[in-house]
Amino acid sequence: MIKRSFASDNNAGVHPEVIEAIRAANEGHVIAYGDDPFTERAVKLFKKHFGPDVAVYFVFGGTGANVLGLKAITKSHQAIICAETAHVNVDECGAPENFTGCKLLTVATPDGKLRVEQIKPLLHGIGVEHHVQPAVIAISQATEMGTVYTKDELKTLADFAHDHGMLLHVDGARLSNAAVSLNAVLKEITADVGVDVLSFGGTKNGMMYGEAVVFFDPKLAADFKYIRKQGMQLSSKMRFIAAQFEAMLSGNLWRRGPAHANRMAQLLASELAQLPQIKITQPVESNGVFAVIPSEHIPALQQKYFFYVWNEEISEVRLMASFDTTEKDIRDFVAFVRETVK
Amino acid sequence: MIKRSFASDNNAGVHPEVIEAIRAANEGHVIAYGDDPFTERAVKLFKKHFGPDVAVYFVFGGTGANVLGLKAITKSHQAIICAETAHVNVDECGAPENFTGCKLLTVATPDGKLRVEQIKPLLHGIGVEHHVQPAVIAISQATEMGTVYTKDELKTLADFAHDHGMLLHVDGARLSNAAVSLNAVLKEITADVGVDVLSFGGTKNGMMYGEAVVFFDPKLAADFKYIRKQGMQLSSKMRFIAAQFEAMLSGNLWRRGPAHANRMAQLLASELAQLPQIKITQPVESNGVFAVIPSEHIPALQQKYFFYVWNEEISEVRLMASFDTTEKDIRDFVAFVRETVK
Amino acid sequence: MIKRSFASDNNAGVHPEVIEAIRAANEGHVIAYGDDPFTERAVKLFKKHFGPDVAVYFVFGGTGANVLGLKAITKSHQAIICAETAHVNVDECGAPENFTGCKLLTVATPDGKLRVEQIKPLLHGIGVEHHVQPAVIAISQATEMGTVYTKDELKTLADFAHDHGMLLHVDGARLSNAAVSLNAVLKEITADVGVDVLSFGGTKNGMMYGEAVVFFDPKLAADFKYIRKQGMQLSSKMRFIAAQFEAMLSGNLWRRGPAHANRMAQLLASELAQLPQIKITQPVESNGVFAVIPSEHIPALQQKYFFYVWNEEISEVRLMASFDTTEKDIRDFVAFVRETVK
Amino acid sequence: MIKRSFASDNNAGVHPEVIEAIRAANEGHVIAYGDDPFTERAVKLFKKHFGPDVAVYFVFGGTGANVLGLKAITKSHQAIICAETAHVNVDECGAPENFTGCKLLTVATPDGKLRVEQIKPLLHGIGVEHHVQPAVIAISQATEMGTVYTKDELKTLADFAHDHGMLLHVDGARLSNAAVSLNAVLKEITADVGVDVLSFGGTKNGMMYGEAVVFFDPKLAADFKYIRKQGMQLSSKMRFIAAQFEAMLSGNLWRRGPAHANRMAQLLASELAQLPQIKITQPVESNGVFAVIPSEHIPALQQKYFFYVWNEEISEVRLMASFDTTEKDIRDFVAFVRETVK
Repeated sequence: MIKRSFASDNNAGVHPEVIEAIRAANEGHVIAYGDDPFTERAVKLFKKHFGPDVAVYFVFGGTGANVLGLKAITKSHQAIICAETAHVNVDECGAPENFTGCKLLTVATPDGKLRVEQIKPLLHGIGVEHHVQPAVIAISQATEMGTVYTKDELKTLADFAHDHGMLLHVDGARLSNAAVSLNAVLKEITADVGVDVLSFGGTKNGMMYGEAVVFFDPKLAADFKYIRKQGMQLSSKMRFIAAQFEAMLSGNLWRRGPAHANRMAQLLASELAQLPQIKITQPVESNGVFAVIPSEHIPALQQKYFFYVWNEEISEVRLMASFDTTEKDIRDFVAFVRETVK
Repeated sequence: MIKRSFASDNNAGVHPEVIEAIRAANEGHVIAYGDDPFTERAVKLFKKHFGPDVAVYFVFGGTGANVLGLKAITKSHQAIICAETAHVNVDECGAPENFTGCKLLTVATPDGKLRVEQIKPLLHGIGVEHHVQPAVIAISQATEMGTVYTKDELKTLADFAHDHGMLLHVDGARLSNAAVSLNAVLKEITADVGVDVLSFGGTKNGMMYGEAVVFFDPKLAADFKYIRKQGMQLSSKMRFIAAQFEAMLSGNLWRRGPAHANRMAQLLASELAQLPQIKITQPVESNGVFAVIPSEHIPALQQKYFFYVWNEEISEVRLMASFDTTEKDIRDFVAFVRETVK
Repeated sequence: MIKRSFASDNNAGVHPEVIEAIRAANEGHVIAYGDDPFTERAVKLFKKHFGPDVAVYFVFGGTGANVLGLKAITKSHQAIICAETAHVNVDECGAPENFTGCKLLTVATPDGKLRVEQIKPLLHGIGVEHHVQPAVIAISQATEMGTVYTKDELKTLADFAHDHGMLLHVDGARLSNAAVSLNAVLKEITADVGVDVLSFGGTKNGMMYGEAVVFFDPKLAADFKYIRKQGMQLSSKMRFIAAQFEAMLSGNLWRRGPAHANRMAQLLASELAQLPQIKITQPVESNGVFAVIPSEHIPALQQKYFFYVWNEEISEVRLMASFDTTEKDIRDFVAFVRETVK
Repeated sequence: MIKRSFASDNNAGVHPEVIEAIRAANEGHVIAYGDDPFTERAVKLFKKHFGPDVAVYFVFGGTGANVLGLKAITKSHQAIICAETAHVNVDECGAPENFTGCKLLTVATPDGKLRVEQIKPLLHGIGVEHHVQPAVIAISQATEMGTVYTKDELKTLADFAHDHGMLLHVDGARLSNAAVSLNAVLKEITADVGVDVLSFGGTKNGMMYGEAVVFFDPKLAADFKYIRKQGMQLSSKMRFIAAQFEAMLSGNLWRRGPAHANRMAQLLASELAQLPQIKITQPVESNGVFAVIPSEHIPALQQKYFFYVWNEEISEVRLMASFDTTEKDIRDFVAFVRETVK
C-alpha cells in the first residue's frame, strides 16, 4: 500500500503538534480519570469555543461519543430520528439500539441531510403506547455524504425539534470541516443555532484517539459521568486525551487541518470532473468526494489506492482527503485514474 | 500535588519506550480498525507469549476488556461468579450487568481470592428456570487486594469451572505483576492452567491506553469483532494501540516495569512495617500494599500524598507502586508517615 | 359504544367453549409454571398439529411471544429483517430492539408481504463488523394488511433465509385465519415450508390471554425456558393458558372462529365495494378489510362504530371481523355507512 | 399428586367469585388495552383502597410487576438494595438486572427483613462514578420468609430511603396477607408509611393471572404506559384482569382469602410444633411456615405432598397455605408427617 490513500480521514496518522502535546504531558503522576490540570485546561478551551455553560466529557472514540450522548437524552421507549446514511444507523453495529434500547427511525435522504418535511410523518403516534416516542433528531455535520448543513438549516431543525419536545443531537466527527466550509466558528454552528448535544470529533481531525461529548445545557449531563463509566468510555490516563484537545483548541490547529483537507477535496473533485468517464455525485462541501467511476476500472484503481465503494449499484466511490493529503497525492492519483479509465 | 503518589498505577504516565513506539508508528497512512501491519505484528507477539492458537483483540480500556470478554461467553440469563472485591463487581458502575444482562454472584473473600468451596453453594439451582445459571468464574490476577493466585490455585479453579460447564475469565489488568511474582512466563499462568478468556492489561503497566482481550479457544471469539464494535471499543487508529503492545512484548518491557513495581511495593511494605502504629493487612505479592493507618493521621498524609482509603471502617489504605516509583519516593513517603504518625 | 365494533379482533371477548375450559380446569392444586397435566396435554396437541418434534412454550401475550422467540435466535449484533408495517416494527414500542439488542431492518411493502428481491439489498455488509448482521427474516401470517402468504411464497422465503444463514420467524397472531384462507392445516404452512420459529396466536382467535412460541427445531429452544422467565412471560397458573389451547386444538375450534371471521370480512368487503364512495385497497384474504372512506365522513362513523384509521394521508381505514361478528353486525354497519357517505 | 399441596399459594386454582367475575365480563366488544369500563371501575377501587392520587397499571404477572415498577424509578447506572432472599434477587432469573440494567446490592438477613443499619454500609461511594448509585430500597411484604414488616418498620425504611434520595419499592405479591396479619387496611401499610411503588399481587391471592403496579406519586408513572408495553406486559383483553381485581376489591374478598390462609398457616405451625422431630424456624406472620424436618424423611413426605426444600444445608422446608387450604388438609398432612418421622 502506498503512503497516503483516500479511504478515510482516519487512515491518516496523528498531527505532529498533537504528538508533541502527548509527549509533553508525559511528566510525573496526575490523578486518573480526569481530575487533573490537563483536563481542566482542555475543558476551559471547550468553554471558550462553545460557550461558558457547556458541560464537556472526553471519551475514547466516535461511536462511544454518539451512543453515550444519545443515552443521556433518551429513555428506552423513545426513538431517534436520523438519516438512513447516518453513522449511528449504519456504521455502529447497532450500538445505539443496544445501549440506549431505543429504536432508530430513518429517513431516506440522497444528500445525507434531514429536512423537517421528512420528519413530520414520523410524529404521528405521539402519546400512543404501542409506538416508540420520537425524542431526538440526530444529524451528522458534515454529513456522511460530504454535505454541510447551513446555519439556517440547523436552526430550522433545532427549532422544530424543540417545538415538538425533542432535542437535536449532532454527530460532529467532522464538525471542524463543516465550520471551515461555512466560514464559521464552532459556537455559531452549535450553541447559537440550538444544538443540544454534540459529539465533537478529534480522531478524524488529526488526534490519535479521543472525542468529546458536549452538552449545551449542563442539566442534560446530570448523569453523564455514570453513563460514561458504565459505557466503558472513561479513560484512566485522561490527561493524554485532554492534552490532544488542548493542542487542537488552544491555537487554530482545529481549523488548519480541516481547511487543508477541504481544499484538497475541492482540488480532487475539480480534477476528476475533467475526466469525462467520471461523474461527481455530491456537492463537495467538506473533505469528501463522491464520484461514479465505471465499475470495470475500480479493481485496478484499488490495487494501488485504497478507497471504499460507497454504492455498488451505481458504482459510486467515496474519496476522503485528510489533514496530511498533499497536492502531489492528488495529482498522482488523478493521473493514475486518467490513465486507468481512458 | 507532588510528582509521584501511591494512589494507583494508573496515575503514572507512559513508559518512555512506549512513547517512542507511538512516535515511530506515526508514519503515513494505514488502513483503520486493525487491518494494518502494526496490529499484525502485535498479534504475533501475543501468540508467541500466550500460545499459537489464541485469538487477540485490542480495546480501549480495562472495563471494556472485561465486559466485552464476558459478553462473548455469556447469555443474559446466566450468572458470573466473582469476588465481592472484584473490579467487575465494584469499580465498573454496573457495566457488566448492563452490557451482558447477566447477574453477578459475589463471594466475600478477605484476600480477594476465590476458592472452590466458596463457589459450590452458588451452583444449586442449575437447570431451574427461576434462577440465573452460573456460566463463568471471573477472577482478578493479581487480585484487587494485591494477592496472587498460584498456578495450582488457578488450575483448580479452571478445572472446577470446566467440570461444571463454566469458563474461567481472568481480569489481568495486573497480570504481568502476577507473572513476575510467580516467576512465570505469561503462558504458564493462563493457557497452561486452563484460563479461557483474559483481559490483558496495558495501561496500568505503562501504556497510554489500550488493553487486549485474549481468547485461548478461538471459537469463543467467533462473534467478538461485532461485540467489540457494538461495545464501542473498536479504535479506528488501531496501529497506536498495537505499537504500544509491540513495545511491551517484543522485548522484556512487559516484565521490567512490573518487576520494579513489585520490588518497590515490597520495600514500601517492609519500611512501613517497622512503624509500630501501622499494620500491613495483606501479603504483598504484587505492586499493592494494604495497611491500617490510624485514621486521625490520614488527612495530614493525604494533603501531601494522594492515595485511597480502601476500608474506612478499619482505616485501611491502599498504596500502589508503579513502573516509575523510585526508592527515593518510598523513603520520602515513609519518612513523612513516620513523622506524621509518631 | 355498541356491542360489537370492527376495531380489532382483540376487542371481542372469549369464545364460550374457551371459558368453559377455564372453568373446568379450576379444580384442586397443580404444580405451577407448567409442570401440570393440562400443559402436558396442550403440548401434545401442538405436536399433533405442528409435528412431533416441535418445542412449545406458552407465554402471556403476543408481543412477548414475538420478542422472546426472536431473542432465542439472535445475538445483539445481529439484525431482523421485516416489513415496515410489521407488528414487531410498529406496534411493540421498541420491545424487539430493547430486549434482543438487535436492529430491525425494514422494507417498505404495500401489501405487507416481504419478497426475496427486497431482502437481497440488505445483505451486503455481511462479515463487516461495522454493520449489524442479518440473522432473521420475520414475517406476519396473515400480514398486518390482511394479506396471506401462499405456501410457495413461504417456502421461497424460508429457502432464501436458510441459504443465507438466516432463520424464518413467523408472527402468527392470525395464523389460523391464514390457514383457513389457504385451506391448509397448520403444519402445511409452517413446518412443511421451513418456518423456524412461530408465534401462534390465541388471544385474537377467541382466547382470554396466552400465546405459544413454537420452535420447529427444538435445538433452537435450548435456552428458551430461561428466556421466558427472564422475559417476564412465565405464567404461574399455567394450566389456565394450557386449558384454553386445549379447547382450541382438541377439536376444530381453532379454525371455526377464523373461518367465520374470514367469511364476515369477505361479506363486509363485498358490501362496502358496492358503495361508489368507498374503495377497497387490499385483497381480503383473512379477517381484515382495508378501505378508503372519504375523510369527512369518518368522524360520524366513529361516533357509532369504533375502528382505526390506518393511513391518515389517504383516509384508509382498517375494519376487522372476529369470531363473534354476525351478518347482522355487518349489514347494520354497511347500512349506516351507506347512509352517512351518501 | 393429591388435590391440595403446600408447595405454593400459586398451586391453588382461582377463587370461585373471581371465575364468576370473569364469566360476567365476557359480554360483547370493548376497546382493548385498558380503555374499557371494567378497567375504569377497577382503578377506582384501587384509589378507594390506596388513596385518590395513586396511578395504577395492570400487568400479566408478578415478575413483570416488580421489574417494570423498578424500571420506572431507576436509571441503568443505579442500584437496587434488597434482601438476599428477595424474589427480585433469586426468583426472577435476572430479569431486574436485564431489563433495568441496574445492579442489585443484596443484604444477608435471616428473617427476610431489611434494616436501616444493614443498608447504611452500601451507601458509601455516592457520587463516585466508578460505583453504581443506590436509588431504590426494595422489600417484600410479606417477606419470602413469611415474616411481616410492622408499620413502624416500614416507615423507618421509607424515611431513610427518602432522606438519602432513594425510593421504597414493595413487592406485595402477598401484601394482603401482611395487611391481615397487621390488622390493617391496605393504605395504612403503603401510602401512609411512605411506600413509593408497589407490586400488588393478585395471582397468589386467588386470581387466575394479573398483578397491579401502584405508584403513590403519579409523577413516577409518567412513562409507565410505554414501559409496560415495551416490557411485554400490556394485556389486550384487559377487561379480564380488571374484572378479577374488581371482584377482589369491591367487597372484602381481598382479605377473606388471606385471612383464611394465614389462619391455616398458624394451625399448621402449631400442629407441627408438637412433633419433637420438627423445628419451626421463622415466626409465622403470614401464610408460610418454615420448618426443619429431618432430611431422611423428606423424600417420603414429598412422594405424597408436593412442597419445596428451602435450605438444603439445614433441611429446612417451606409450607404455604392458600385461600382454599382446609383444616382437614392440615390435619391429614400433619398426621402423615407424624407417622413418617416417628
